[in-house]
Amino acid sequence: MDVTTSKIGVVGSGSWATAIAKMVLINSERINWYFRNPDHIEKFKRVKHNPNYLTSVAFNTDQIDFSSDINEMVEQSDILIFANPSAFIKETLANLTVSLKDKFIVSAIKGLVPDDNLVIGSYFHKIHQVPLHQVAVISGPCHAEEVALERLSYLTIACQDIKKGRDFAGRLQCSYIKTVVTDDIYGTEFSAVLKNIMAIASGICHGLGYGDNFQAVLISNAIQEIKRFVDTVHPIPRDIKSSAYLGDLLVTCYSQFSRNRTFGTMIGKGYSVKSAQLEMLMIAEGYYAAKSIKEINDKYKVNMPITDAVYNIIYERISPAIEIKLLTEYLR
Amino acid sequence: MDVTTSKIGVVGSGSWATAIAKMVLINSERINWYFRNPDHIEKFKRVKHNPNYLTSVAFNTDQIDFSSDINEMVEQSDILIFANPSAFIKETLANLTVSLKDKFIVSAIKGLVPDDNLVIGSYFHKIHQVPLHQVAVISGPCHAEEVALERLSYLTIACQDIKKGRDFAGRLQCSYIKTVVTDDIYGTEFSAVLKNIMAIASGICHGLGYGDNFQAVLISNAIQEIKRFVDTVHPIPRDIKSSAYLGDLLVTCYSQFSRNRTFGTMIGKGYSVKSAQLEMLMIAEGYYAAKSIKEINDKYKVNMPITDAVYNIIYERISPAIEIKLLTEYLR
Repeated sequence: MDVTTSKIGVVGSGSWATAIAKMVLINSERINWYFRNPDHIEKFKRVKHNPNYLTSVAFNTDQIDFSSDINEMVEQSDILIFANPSAFIKETLANLTVSLKDKFIVSAIKGLVPDDNLVIGSYFHKIHQVPLHQVAVISGPCHAEEVALERLSYLTIACQDIKKGRDFAGRLQCSYIKTVVTDDIYGTEFSAVLKNIMAIASGICHGLGYGDNFQAVLISNAIQEIKRFVDTVHPIPRDIKSSAYLGDLLVTCYSQFSRNRTFGTMIGKGYSVKSAQLEMLMIAEGYYAAKSIKEINDKYKVNMPITDAVYNIIYERISPAIEIKLLTEYLR
Repeated sequence: MDVTTSKIGVVGSGSWATAIAKMVLINSERINWYFRNPDHIEKFKRVKHNPNYLTSVAFNTDQIDFSSDINEMVEQSDILIFANPSAFIKETLANLTVSLKDKFIVSAIKGLVPDDNLVIGSYFHKIHQVPLHQVAVISGPCHAEEVALERLSYLTIACQDIKKGRDFAGRLQCSYIKTVVTDDIYGTEFSAVLKNIMAIASGICHGLGYGDNFQAVLISNAIQEIKRFVDTVHPIPRDIKSSAYLGDLLVTCYSQFSRNRTFGTMIGKGYSVKSAQLEMLMIAEGYYAAKSIKEINDKYKVNMPITDAVYNIIYERISPAIEIKLLTEYLR
């Protein structure tokens, strides 16, 4: 398979999937696009944009082969970019009968597979027998909303086969998208997962009335915590200050577009977890990630005071004010 | 001299000096406070707050021995905290006849001495013969405005004599101020200087319309640039991800209170340097720092694309749009 020309299928109907479809269509004549809900496909074709997310981005629907049949989707695509919430990945693939073994699988999910507690790359490798050199990860710092606005953004493509990674990166580059290629698929995925937990912490502190001075301390400690965890779980040389790790953390903790930070802010302001989730109508990946990382870390025992605090607040119902006050004693 | 009890004198009348005076007065019965302008002292005594900066912070003026005579100030103080703009430090000390040799000198300046291109600690050591173990640095992340609001902040105290550093830190600690002590006076000072240049860059990009995704990449590259420079100029082990370095950079680049970022934003929006300075009525330290660092780096030749870009824009009058477009090719 030639990654530079093979047909790309995008799986997911949210804002990140929509942003990715927009990027891919700059260099590709046609794409496949999987929507779980066939009604949304009909509406998309009628209004010429995603009816629910990034609605300002107009698409030429003649270039898109929509499908809500996952088997058809996989059969017709050589490269599959998964950009749906991690909570739905198993459900999406539940009825899959077509093999993924020869596909080039790209995770744009930024979450872990629930229960299995695997990063998406490992999941496709272990459960669907996709060779590791055919697995890639797309990471930020990149909010979909700014791709819609065509604001300059840098994407990191991680792939153990650097040549394939570069070839795939070429499919996304355009005047407003630059790419960086790395071979650190595990570090990139775990870091993308952890930053959502950190953004929830950042939001909680904001909601409680902590200011900019404290946020700077929190986020400095957050990148140190991410480094400790990632270096333990997958110890290879990496510069955690790179855009894919630190940059991704920054955009998520500081941007108005971050749903994880917004979720945290609501918790800090006193909303219950349930009501914050209902209010947002969007999945905050960090909510699931806090539980998965906590479980994974039972084995590694990395010192993770921020992750522990978020877990205690959203799963153990400890008062945010008390838990964060305790956290301030650990930070420096 | 016992740093835990000796009399403290604050030099400077701006917002950071005012915030420091507020902190010191929590643990000290009296302080000396130097204002260059005697009229401001009179007004301060009348209105019971700094007439020009952090006006919401009320002071008990009975606890303050004001002076606009630098010799009297130095004579009466064992510990001198300098918190005036770096551009005025030589002028402030021009008529000094009293020796500083036995004083404990604390720099809260975050700038370089113009022309000499020395960090403040080195300046007092080299020009005023203050032994290095009697020199300390106060650094952030800490905007004065949030100290006024009594929002939890962490200060870094750098002193080669760690015991003295700890003793001095004790003078500032209170319910909303936590301190971290380090021996890295040069790294802390240079990093505090460099972050102002980075904040100007951040503002310029914001003014030009670059978004959050790009800011995250810029700031990730900025901390790498700071590390390269500081590790070259003063190569000792340090974790650049600590609050004193990364945190200080973050609060300056991301906060609404940052005058350097505001200055940069005006430049990015098309103001001339002169009109941006007039409009702000405040000194943006990064303006001077860009020139000094550029000159210092003539010797070290560290790769500093962001600093170079800021220098080119504000001193060489290169168009911000063109210069930043070139910069985007260097970042990753």
